Amino acid sequence: MNIIILGAGLIGLPMALDLQKDNQFNVTLCDIDKQKLDRVSSEYNIDTLQADLTEVHSIQKVVANADMVLNAVPGFMGFATLKTVIEAGKNVVDITFFPEDLFDLDELAKVRGVIAISDIGVAPGMSNILSSYADHQLDQTESIRIYVGGLPKVREWPWEYKAVFSPIDVIEEYSRHARFIKNGREIVMPALSDAELIDIDGVGTLEAFNSDGLRSLMKTIDCPDMVEKTMRYPGHIDKIKVLQDTGFFSEEEVEVSGKMIRPLDLTTSLLFPKWEFKKGDEDITVMKIIVAGQKDKRAVRYEWSLYDEYDPQSGVHSMARTTGYTATAAVRMIAAGLYDRKGVSPPEYIGKCAECVEFILKCLRERGVVYKELRVES
Amino acid sequence: MNIIILGAGLIGLPMALDLQKDNQFNVTLCDIDKQKLDRVSSEYNIDTLQADLTEVHSIQKVVANADMVLNAVPGFMGFATLKTVIEAGKNVVDITFFPEDLFDLDELAKVRGVIAISDIGVAPGMSNILSSYADHQLDQTESIRIYVGGLPKVREWPWEYKAVFSPIDVIEEYSRHARFIKNGREIVMPALSDAELIDIDGVGTLEAFNSDGLRSLMKTIDCPDMVEKTMRYPGHIDKIKVLQDTGFFSEEEVEVSGKMIRPLDLTTSLLFPKWEFKKGDEDITVMKIIVAGQKDKRAVRYEWSLYDEYDPQSGVHSMARTTGYTATAAVRMIAAGLYDRKGVSPPEYIGKCAECVEFILKCLRERGVVYKELRVES
Repeated sequence: MNIIILGAGLIGLPMALDLQKDNQFNVTLCDIDKQKLDRVSSEYNIDTLQADLTEVHSIQKVVANADMVLNAVPGFMGFATLKTVIEAGKNVVDITFFPEDLFDLDELAKVRGVIAISDIGVAPGMSNILSSYADHQLDQTESIRIYVGGLPKVREWPWEYKAVFSPIDVIEEYSRHARFIKNGREIVMPALSDAELIDIDGVGTLEAFNSDGLRSLMKTIDCPDMVEKTMRYPGHIDKIKVLQDTGFFSEEEVEVSGKMIRPLDLTTSLLFPKWEFKKGDEDITVMKIIVAGQKDKRAVRYEWSLYDEYDPQSGVHSMARTTGYTATAAVRMIAAGLYDRKGVSPPEYIGKCAECVEFILKCLRERGVVYKELRVES
Repeated sequence: MNIIILGAGLIGLPMALDLQKDNQFNVTLCDIDKQKLDRVSSEYNIDTLQADLTEVHSIQKVVANADMVLNAVPGFMGFATLKTVIEAGKNVVDITFFPEDLFDLDELAKVRGVIAISDIGVAPGMSNILSSYADHQLDQTESIRIYVGGLPKVREWPWEYKAVFSPIDVIEEYSRHARFIKNGREIVMPALSDAELIDIDGVGTLEAFNSDGLRSLMKTIDCPDMVEKTMRYPGHIDKIKVLQDTGFFSEEEVEVSGKMIRPLDLTTSLLFPKWEFKKGDEDITVMKIIVAGQKDKRAVRYEWSLYDEYDPQSGVHSMARTTGYTATAAVRMIAAGLYDRKGVSPPEYIGKCAECVEFILKCLRERGVVYKELRVES
């Protein structure tokens, strides 16, 4: 089975290496960056293909021989790329986390007979799958709480934070209003609001704040209380708020010594070296999903906990492991014929199928990414 | 007696109004800013004179008829202005807090037969006078601790700080290494170091950190442990350190969207509106001076506490009251013939004369600026 991976970034390559180990797959990794591809092909036994994936024709050509496509281009290109792949009639797994609405391509995918799964990382991704799984087990779902964070293993003052992506994306996340469901209504709250402390096994106390990560769940699951929160080491949020309040995130140009600049541009350029993972810096991914409801008139609570670390053997970051291996599990699930819904599926559609959920959790477990489940009946 | 005040800034005008009330003084306020002077003469019955005080000839002309001069120009002009006034043979009280060494003009003042008192505000100023006073009462001085802060009365997150001067001067103070005396040796410590919490009557708990304010005291007083600390509301320092550590105070140009800018310039321009006292914003000045030593083989501790507020009647800031009225008290002290040392005197020289100290404390008390004294013998 020919698998084409679009984008040879931090997640693209680990996904290629993971699928490559499987005899059923022939993997080709595509990117515009020739040097990067040369490094990949010299270091690993993976086919590469240079292509400008901003060009529709170029994508069409690249996916022509594919049996399945894994879309891992940068977010801003995600939607357009996915559309082209669907138009080409290819089954596709997408981890570009584009800002557009994935359901806008659902009709097209149905018409083309394409199985497309989007948003299939950690959160969104596993958070949707497991929330939906619990929702389908319960007679009535009363609340869904998702806590997720990608963090450096070593805490360095002042930020105690590093990101595998650009600070500008992180700040964008910190600036965007958070939408969630409270008492059955959609609520919009400022970014970084409702900070609470939460204890995470093996990590200690973290601080969680509202983030805008529920996405499709707000439409697909009928639950009166639903929230997603991002976790950081305590104190990080307050420091971010200091910058925000003082104007360091402003995108309006100000005059500084006769030159017009956007404060945000300076801020991200100063934060970049501080927040960048240097060679050997280890990251961790933590997630807690708590779904409460009723089953046979008894209160039932499902809890999943994830703690994952950077893999020093392979040098693969935890963020890439937890995101990428969820996506490759979805590729395997489609290849195995377990999931065959035509259209664009958000991950919660997978959660309706207990066999699919078990399959994905097993794939992840085999790669050391373990979701501990707790079911409490009271 | 003709008093010429150089500089009609935030402190210059309140000093002029204070001296003007005294029949013995004819006050003239000089500044380069014609509009400011017009406002002053239309609102108050004070003579004004427009002059460019960066010009030696201009200063010479302005002080020609003066019996005494009060130097209140900006710090960077202070030393040169003081020199010209001394050369003109005029007694002078100086609150410009210039960075140069005041003793460099001592010989010149002696030769010209001029009484010059410099650094005569709160700290430096009253801190020197009272430390020196205690030092002269004691047989042996073991430690001098000076805590001082100018703060907004209302605490507004995140900075809980406002300044009557430019943020760039404050940041400069936060960036400059602090020199003090420990175990009889001169010690240099990073700015903002040795943070400690301190309770101040009527204010609550403040946070104090090393600042570089001992200045002449390090040369003039023989005491093995001497420190000056600046006080802020708790949390302020940590936020400053976050900016500092991230590079927001850097004076090295960086490229931002193709333009070269100094991060410090953007930072001060963002902080300016946040740290500026708006009309009606009230400030407070707090100081604690603790001098410990031996007298007649008994341990003796002197403590002075100052708490002063913005005066809503006159609209004069506490910073201007506590600084300016100390300087006008010094003018009165010279006019009364109480202090007649020729040369440039740092304020601690006044502290040797108990009568002078009582005179200055009385002047301040009459204006509501009260130093509470405590003497503990054990």
